[in-house]
Amino acid sequence: MKKAEDFSEWYNEIVERANLTDKRYPVKGMNVWTPYGWKIMQAIDSHIRQEFDATGHNEVYFPLLIPEDQFAKEKEHIKGFDAEVFWVTHAGLNPLDVRLLLRPTSETAMYPIFSLWIRSHADLPLKTYQIVNTFRYETKQTRAFIRVREIHFFESHTCHADFEDAERQVREDFEILARLAKKLCLPYRLLKRTDWDKFPGADYTVGIDTILPNGRSLQLGSIHQYKENFSRPYEIKYEDEKGEHRYVHQTTFGMSERLVGAIVAIHGDDKGLVLPPDVATNQVVIVPVLAKGHTEAVTRAARELFEELRAAGVRVHLDERDVRPGVKYYDWELKGVPLRLELGARDIEMKKVTFVRRDTGEKFLRERANVADEVRAVLSDIARDMLARAQKEMEANTITVTELKDLPEKMVRTGWCGSADCGHEIEARSDMNILGTPVDGETFEGKCVICGKPTRSPVYLAKAM
Amino acid sequence: MKKAEDFSEWYNEIVERANLTDKRYPVKGMNVWTPYGWKIMQAIDSHIRQEFDATGHNEVYFPLLIPEDQFAKEKEHIKGFDAEVFWVTHAGLNPLDVRLLLRPTSETAMYPIFSLWIRSHADLPLKTYQIVNTFRYETKQTRAFIRVREIHFFESHTCHADFEDAERQVREDFEILARLAKKLCLPYRLLKRTDWDKFPGADYTVGIDTILPNGRSLQLGSIHQYKENFSRPYEIKYEDEKGEHRYVHQTTFGMSERLVGAIVAIHGDDKGLVLPPDVATNQVVIVPVLAKGHTEAVTRAARELFEELRAAGVRVHLDERDVRPGVKYYDWELKGVPLRLELGARDIEMKKVTFVRRDTGEKFLRERANVADEVRAVLSDIARDMLARAQKEMEANTITVTELKDLPEKMVRTGWCGSADCGHEIEARSDMNILGTPVDGETFEGKCVICGKPTRSPVYLAKAM
Repeated sequence: MKKAEDFSEWYNEIVERANLTDKRYPVKGMNVWTPYGWKIMQAIDSHIRQEFDATGHNEVYFPLLIPEDQFAKEKEHIKGFDAEVFWVTHAGLNPLDVRLLLRPTSETAMYPIFSLWIRSHADLPLKTYQIVNTFRYETKQTRAFIRVREIHFFESHTCHADFEDAERQVREDFEILARLAKKLCLPYRLLKRTDWDKFPGADYTVGIDTILPNGRSLQLGSIHQYKENFSRPYEIKYEDEKGEHRYVHQTTFGMSERLVGAIVAIHGDDKGLVLPPDVATNQVVIVPVLAKGHTEAVTRAARELFEELRAAGVRVHLDERDVRPGVKYYDWELKGVPLRLELGARDIEMKKVTFVRRDTGEKFLRERANVADEVRAVLSDIARDMLARAQKEMEANTITVTELKDLPEKMVRTGWCGSADCGHEIEARSDMNILGTPVDGETFEGKCVICGKPTRSPVYLAKAM
Repeated sequence: MKKAEDFSEWYNEIVERANLTDKRYPVKGMNVWTPYGWKIMQAIDSHIRQEFDATGHNEVYFPLLIPEDQFAKEKEHIKGFDAEVFWVTHAGLNPLDVRLLLRPTSETAMYPIFSLWIRSHADLPLKTYQIVNTFRYETKQTRAFIRVREIHFFESHTCHADFEDAERQVREDFEILARLAKKLCLPYRLLKRTDWDKFPGADYTVGIDTILPNGRSLQLGSIHQYKENFSRPYEIKYEDEKGEHRYVHQTTFGMSERLVGAIVAIHGDDKGLVLPPDVATNQVVIVPVLAKGHTEAVTRAARELFEELRAAGVRVHLDERDVRPGVKYYDWELKGVPLRLELGARDIEMKKVTFVRRDTGEKFLRERANVADEVRAVLSDIARDMLARAQKEMEANTITVTELKDLPEKMVRTGWCGSADCGHEIEARSDMNILGTPVDGETFEGKCVICGKPTRSPVYLAKAM
């Protein structure tokens, strides 16, 4: 299946052929993480941990099961999730007194405990995160990594003395995200959701949206400002410097295994995966090209090359299988290894190594002498180019319109006065969802596409994947 | 509370005071992992990953929820777990067609998929593991890390061509365990369980048992030989070299957050935790001892010391809080940091650093010049001594008896002919559980304590924690 012809089929096929997941588990939307898929997820997790640890967040782990009464305290929140949670009603042979639900997200597991942890302003800000399995009873068609029922999920939860400090946290989250997305080579837009589309219980929600090659939007995650919406029902209070009791302001930041799905979808090609070097299990694969009379020398040279790169901290694999080089090229291209090094008798003679980039297919020679530096430089070029190409593709998949007619399947940028009436009308006429307005101050000199009022900020619409 | 006076109370108190867990979550037996507790668990997990990766196991992640019909295929297995699983019966507002249970362990989630992964002898051995949350509806009194209802759990699952290869795996597991337990400074005995106490579905079970200071036994984990007991109902077959179809032989190895509980219980003292250096979040804490006129010089020297140790790969913390050194000593002793370095004006003048061992309280001077080597050497001594002391304590808490009268609360070693009748009688008369017979070939020239028949292997009994 070709990506350009049927993106959706291509995606399903590539995920399976590259053996990232096994979808044959007998519960729909609950897939098995294979060793290869799980390693990629863990690489992403380790970047997340690094970023959040470095910004003073503490990793925690809260229980999976949430009692119904505790879940119900914030009214909007339970309304938003009521139809999509899994319920534990029995334990052993007996019914439970209080039903327990599987966390769809952990606000209601954490916040009663936060109210015990926070006493005074000295306890603030409280910055925590966890990486856990969460559950949503998706009724739409499921899709590996993109829409599943057991979701590998990262969530940070912070408490602050006031709104301004919580806003600072939101800005720090934007910076963390920028660094993470660069490593993952993922372009995105930060779009403030409409009031009718924000997270249940949030004061406002910023969606992290990217575009897939089929022109559909994919939400990679979100960042929420809760103000006091949760701290009031959950009574998370602190004593300020003057001895007065105040409710904390809260934020959250969440992202999921969709990051894996986005990498597959955006960077993959007809040959298979193309993994960003910072995420790849193997950044480099070495394929010895053996020829009669040189087998031993080439094997020795390949092993030396392997040891040298490994010692230099490169994640490298030496493929010594007894199959033709062409088979190896095929396999590692499917697996998305960013850089292939070929080493044959001629390379050795010339004191060179043949480099082949997975992202562009380019083939070139580099000096054997300073190979570790060359490898690092090329991996860095690959990452930079992958992000730049994806960024360009996102721009190419975005159009600006002044009327909502004959819209292509792309992300659409247009004018909106901001009123709910016009917003609903935009969604109805375009048959798309409003993703929101950019938070980065992007300007737009135009008119609301419905009422014609002048507007200085654009709005983005799309069909969701 | 003193450990020697009331171990059980001491344990509960120390876990709370050291802030390893928060037990105030509103579901009994489901506790919150605080940042400090979680870091210790993660350190243990990373040792586990290292060992299993190095022995050719692949990490995977299988879904949490298991359909009832899939769970019921191996008859002994479901009988063993029926009374202690949590059931998901509803999703959203509707009842599910097939009830789903929360994994108590993952045999029945994995094995239907293994039957798809394994086709030929070339796919064997299949060696996998995962680190996940599991659930058991404990009806006994819960206790942090030791008896909980959401359990942080490691489980390896392997498939082999024949019984002999599965037996080799069991022996590899023994070796892995020995290396892990050394890092965790935990002594243990490998005891083959009785037939009436083995894991539901196993051919045989080897318990990994340690003794707590109160003389009760604590099972740290277990290693199971399944033979074809699961591969038959789950149809995990392979084609051998001759083209014949055979069932695989399977083994598992599981350990849980009890490892944290055992470290707390065995090594802790009245001042708090005592963490093994390989597990400690901070292996070393530096406390600058400031005095008038030397504040700046000491602060500078302490920071240099910190940077030097950090660069040398030591997990080190510099405590620059504006409180008295005594307060810092107290805090870090409670947290169990293995080694404290004190640095004052006199130390600097003498070109020395004051070392204080957490495990023994010993205080001594070491040269500042080669401090990183000194620190490494002392940490290594601490680990060696902690294990040796615990080993000695385990021996002291074990007695050999020839009659089952007036037994103290210790691990009891006696003779057993191996018959079920005598075994049940031993348990009844001793009011203890048979843990099993040693797998290491330990000999015992004696008689069955019930029937008097000669026996060459001892049996161990204990009351469980």
